Amino acid sequence: MNKDFKEQLSVRTGQVEAVIVKYLPNPEGYQKTVVEAMNYSILAGGKRLRPLLMFETYRMFGGRSKVIEPFMAAMEMVHTYSLVHDDLPAMDNDEYRRGKKTTHAQYGEAMGILAGDGLLNYAFETAAKAFDIEPGNFHIGKALSVLARKSGIHGMLGGQCVDVEMEGKPVAEDMLRFIYQLKTGALLEASMRIGAILAGATQSEQRQVEQAAAELGLAFQIQDDILDVTSTIEELGKPIGSDEKNEKTTWVTLYGIEGARQEVERLSHHSVELMDTLVVKNEFLTNLMLYLINRKK
Amino acid sequence: MNKDFKEQLSVRTGQVEAVIVKYLPNPEGYQKTVVEAMNYSILAGGKRLRPLLMFETYRMFGGRSKVIEPFMAAMEMVHTYSLVHDDLPAMDNDEYRRGKKTTHAQYGEAMGILAGDGLLNYAFETAAKAFDIEPGNFHIGKALSVLARKSGIHGMLGGQCVDVEMEGKPVAEDMLRFIYQLKTGALLEASMRIGAILAGATQSEQRQVEQAAAELGLAFQIQDDILDVTSTIEELGKPIGSDEKNEKTTWVTLYGIEGARQEVERLSHHSVELMDTLVVKNEFLTNLMLYLINRKK
Repeated sequence: MNKDFKEQLSVRTGQVEAVIVKYLPNPEGYQKTVVEAMNYSILAGGKRLRPLLMFETYRMFGGRSKVIEPFMAAMEMVHTYSLVHDDLPAMDNDEYRRGKKTTHAQYGEAMGILAGDGLLNYAFETAAKAFDIEPGNFHIGKALSVLARKSGIHGMLGGQCVDVEMEGKPVAEDMLRFIYQLKTGALLEASMRIGAILAGATQSEQRQVEQAAAELGLAFQIQDDILDVTSTIEELGKPIGSDEKNEKTTWVTLYGIEGARQEVERLSHHSVELMDTLVVKNEFLTNLMLYLINRKK
Repeated sequence: MNKDFKEQLSVRTGQVEAVIVKYLPNPEGYQKTVVEAMNYSILAGGKRLRPLLMFETYRMFGGRSKVIEPFMAAMEMVHTYSLVHDDLPAMDNDEYRRGKKTTHAQYGEAMGILAGDGLLNYAFETAAKAFDIEPGNFHIGKALSVLARKSGIHGMLGGQCVDVEMEGKPVAEDMLRFIYQLKTGALLEASMRIGAILAGATQSEQRQVEQAAAELGLAFQIQDDILDVTSTIEELGKPIGSDEKNEKTTWVTLYGIEGARQEVERLSHHSVELMDTLVVKNEFLTNLMLYLINRKK
């Protein structure tokens, strides 16, 4: 991870941020409070990883049209809605996220629920704007299907539900893997697959980047488990040891720090291998994936 | 409203019900609780008005394909999610709906939030299945855009947010009209417009049925205000006088029962007039619209 990569990352994240901002709804009319709450949630920060992975995959497969943009914004809206609802009193009951008040803490619980609903709904409203950009592009319908499936009960939301249900109960490896793959992996898979679909990649190429994203997601989440034990509050920017406090089963509680590190190593190696066997290349994307897995916070 | 209409209504509602059931998700896998909660919410009953209006509009314009079916199911999922979230403790805090426990009362608050999210998400996942039925049909993208827009901050959700914000505050006519048009009208507008779009109706025909649906929605909601004052618990099947108890501004509090009746009359007359000026006809649909406006419960 050299200085050059960090610079590129900063520049490209800025470009992604501009796309997200472009597609935010206007806070106007009688309903402007909910729109303000939605924009507050999105603009509270974030690494914009998912739209970045989507865009870089799209470019890798030769995509050059603006048709990707509404999907990039939509993906960040889905991710943000999931955080807003996760933070609600009936869920994790978090008052702060990244040092800022969470949406319901700022706007009240009812508006927190409605802002989350608004973001999920607006994600699809936004993605559907791709039809205005390229009305005859039949890849758009496929991309929309993937976005919906990977966000919902067979994707992120499904993982979230199992996570909520299993709180305080022992979790075996296959269920933990299932939760991680859905809760964390599904949106990464969708991001890279949608990038591939809209760029016109073959079915086999689509499956390959989706698989690479799945292993990236799992490695990313296990790295999260490791950092919760080994990092410091200063480095992580949030309280460490929260998994132990919440009696959560993690990869570390199942296999220890060393076992978790080995699994991260195995998964990231295989994920990058899958990317390397593609005919097309995007060095920045591979570096980004490694950076995410090896991060210290 | 003769016996013949009532019989037809019963038969056609049954057909719509079968379509909805066909598109319900399977409760399986680790995440089956949330799927059960989603299906519980949908199967708790309802008049299935929105998919019925959609289907009859589709048929009126000559539509005969199964491409309408995923949209019918999706519309009922959106409607159901809005009820599930409306009933939450942070919103209306209702324990019962149609004599059955509400979703959060049955499955807990966290699962109530997640089941609502799941339904909204699955609505788009379901609607996107239309692309599998007719991959080359470019009307599907338009229909999806309408579904998303009319459900979200510029539609139902927008009206819901203003309604929540104005609770206990005085509301003037233009804002009340806005709330009714969005909260109640938007999904009726979407239902009839999507039926028209998928059947290949012209832009002008699409606008005309959408306008008829908008006036139907307003009349329907004002009739609701009237029934809350004039009906009996037995007839309505739920407590009357709830608006007064909640200090809600309604059409009746603004203009009295007689003024409200005149507005319902004016709107329903104009709504049916709009339908009558179309080249195509569907007598059952017109009767259904009149039935909804003149209902006693």
